[in-house]
Amino acid sequence: MPAHFELLRTDPASAARRGRLHLPHGVVETPIFMPVGTAASVKAIAPDDLERIGAQIVLGNTYHLFLRPGHELVKRRGGLHPFMAWPRPILTDSGGFQVYSLSEARKIAEEGVTFRSHLDGSARFIGPETSMEIQQALGADVIMAFDECPPAKSDRAYLEPSLARTTRWAHRCKAAWNPDGPSNLFGIVQGGLFPDLRQRHAEEICALDLPGYALGGYSVGESIPEMYASVAEAAPNLPAEKPRYLMGVGTPEDLVTCVGLGIDMFDCVLPTRTARNGRLYTSEGVLSIKAARFAEDDRPLDPACRCYTCRTFSRAYLRHLFVAQELLSYRLNSLHNLTFFLDLMATVRAKIEAGEYAAWSKAWLAERAARIAEAKAEEAAKPRSKGRAPNRPIAG
Amino acid sequence: MPAHFELLRTDPASAARRGRLHLPHGVVETPIFMPVGTAASVKAIAPDDLERIGAQIVLGNTYHLFLRPGHELVKRRGGLHPFMAWPRPILTDSGGFQVYSLSEARKIAEEGVTFRSHLDGSARFIGPETSMEIQQALGADVIMAFDECPPAKSDRAYLEPSLARTTRWAHRCKAAWNPDGPSNLFGIVQGGLFPDLRQRHAEEICALDLPGYALGGYSVGESIPEMYASVAEAAPNLPAEKPRYLMGVGTPEDLVTCVGLGIDMFDCVLPTRTARNGRLYTSEGVLSIKAARFAEDDRPLDPACRCYTCRTFSRAYLRHLFVAQELLSYRLNSLHNLTFFLDLMATVRAKIEAGEYAAWSKAWLAERAARIAEAKAEEAAKPRSKGRAPNRPIAG
Repeated sequence: MPAHFELLRTDPASAARRGRLHLPHGVVETPIFMPVGTAASVKAIAPDDLERIGAQIVLGNTYHLFLRPGHELVKRRGGLHPFMAWPRPILTDSGGFQVYSLSEARKIAEEGVTFRSHLDGSARFIGPETSMEIQQALGADVIMAFDECPPAKSDRAYLEPSLARTTRWAHRCKAAWNPDGPSNLFGIVQGGLFPDLRQRHAEEICALDLPGYALGGYSVGESIPEMYASVAEAAPNLPAEKPRYLMGVGTPEDLVTCVGLGIDMFDCVLPTRTARNGRLYTSEGVLSIKAARFAEDDRPLDPACRCYTCRTFSRAYLRHLFVAQELLSYRLNSLHNLTFFLDLMATVRAKIEAGEYAAWSKAWLAERAARIAEAKAEEAAKPRSKGRAPNRPIAG
Repeated sequence: MPAHFELLRTDPASAARRGRLHLPHGVVETPIFMPVGTAASVKAIAPDDLERIGAQIVLGNTYHLFLRPGHELVKRRGGLHPFMAWPRPILTDSGGFQVYSLSEARKIAEEGVTFRSHLDGSARFIGPETSMEIQQALGADVIMAFDECPPAKSDRAYLEPSLARTTRWAHRCKAAWNPDGPSNLFGIVQGGLFPDLRQRHAEEICALDLPGYALGGYSVGESIPEMYASVAEAAPNLPAEKPRYLMGVGTPEDLVTCVGLGIDMFDCVLPTRTARNGRLYTSEGVLSIKAARFAEDDRPLDPACRCYTCRTFSRAYLRHLFVAQELLSYRLNSLHNLTFFLDLMATVRAKIEAGEYAAWSKAWLAERAARIAEAKAEEAAKPRSKGRAPNRPIAG
């Protein structure tokens, strides 16, 4: 079934769009955040939890599923949906980002990429046709073209041949794709931080007339203002009538900002990975649950949150679970962070529907920055986080 | 509120009893299996899961909670029930078993036991009064007397003074216990594998007229037939009108056998610990989910099981999660094993109610032995489990 994207409303004072993406396994209300389920599981979270928190679509990682349990095994099970018991839409990435993250162990050629498995060191290969074969075997609703994701700070000399190859690979992906099957191919536009390269590459990729398009190559080393400036320039290059997906992004602030730049779809490991590290997103900022000040804090993690964790447990208990390394900690923290991201996107959609997005998002970002600055000042004496980690699952 | 035990029915052809234990936080239908929630969490399982699978009472470990987060912190939170958000009955052990498991780092004296924390090496002390203070601070519905749990094969020379001290400690526990509070003190009978020592010690402990009694010192190194023979002799020493608890036992076969010997309550880490190691109890025996033969097995783990895991996922998916070390594996496996144990006990209760326990249990044990022998023969060529581990959480 071909994807169909309805553009329901555009914000009068920003590029924000409210849409509805019809996919073989259901409807996705956009803008949407997609929880990452790398190896056919959103880490620590079962499908019943995903349903309960209102996830509409989850992401699977081609690289990981290719290596284990193998796409052919999944295909013989009827695909990723029955295998992981997730009946709603799934998007798979192309494997490109992960194989490039194996920087020591991979070789890029015209044909594709040869790399060593992080699991057993065996030599493996993914090219455009392999990536299409894997993703179509998995049976995802949305599949991504196989691209090269260059470091954000790559220069023109590196980018020019890379972009040309990514375009050739996109043609090969389209040729290897069955448009009458359940999987809808999205193209990926690269171009680093160069507006002209982004524009030219968008023209090349959009000429393929695919069901949707993504901006790749962000959140890979550039600064946040650089990313926002580039997305602001690059998003309008994509056709308005197709969904626009910003890959591997990002923080709540990134989501709210980039929706205002015209983005419809996001994915990021941030909510689940930080949850496992005890960093929790709340309506009041971000807190590190292991902090001693929560040891006897009987308040819910986030009084404004509807999730099971916040309705049931105190910060004191969540801190105990985290400090004691209890397995339950990972589930409860992940449930909360995912709920925070999903509910934020529900608010985002409501604000676009109400025609208030530009004003709301400006106020939200200002209030959030103020709260986080406040919290940082309070904890100024204490050691804090170690900066931004990659926002997508890497290979290892 | 003092515990009240109703003896509803006794089996005409065995010592099995169907009872109902009224506790401050609810009613427990006996015979019962109690999931172990060592550090205020049944590992990988939240209270919503426990409710769903029908757990009636869970166990907490005094030693672990004393060290982290500390019983006074828990008391300031209102006790273990609100702290872990479990509204139903809780039983805590005395800490004795865990401090004795620290064999290198502990010293037993008349006053109590000095030991080194497995967390930070600090010197700590638990005696009868401390144990009562900790358990009453936690607010458990059932609290256990502080005893010494000697190795099963201890000789008379070791046991005689140990039993005398455990009796003196039981008197001190009773003196330190508030019988008008929410916690009901159970005494513990030791005596190794000597029927006369078991009988004499039962007389000493039961003379204290406590709300319930436990048999301790089993599943600590003796053979299974030795344990069954000793429990058969020791259970009738306990008063018929009080609940009888066999501590740290055991396998499904142990439960079915020992119910027939007159036991009402059981706890064991077996279902949750083996679940995390991928060993799963099913109506057809025990299987190791990592086995290659499950890689493409689309059947549910146990077609006869009602649990979320069995209703939702295939063996192939459960194997994948386990092999990939996905966190979800621990929850799904634990949910299943606990459901197996709880449902087995529901069947046990129904069979006693129907007056069929003796015949049913004999047939069940025979069929189970046959199925397990069959499965072992099928896998004869493959390496299997490494024997019995301790069935209670040890200190480390």
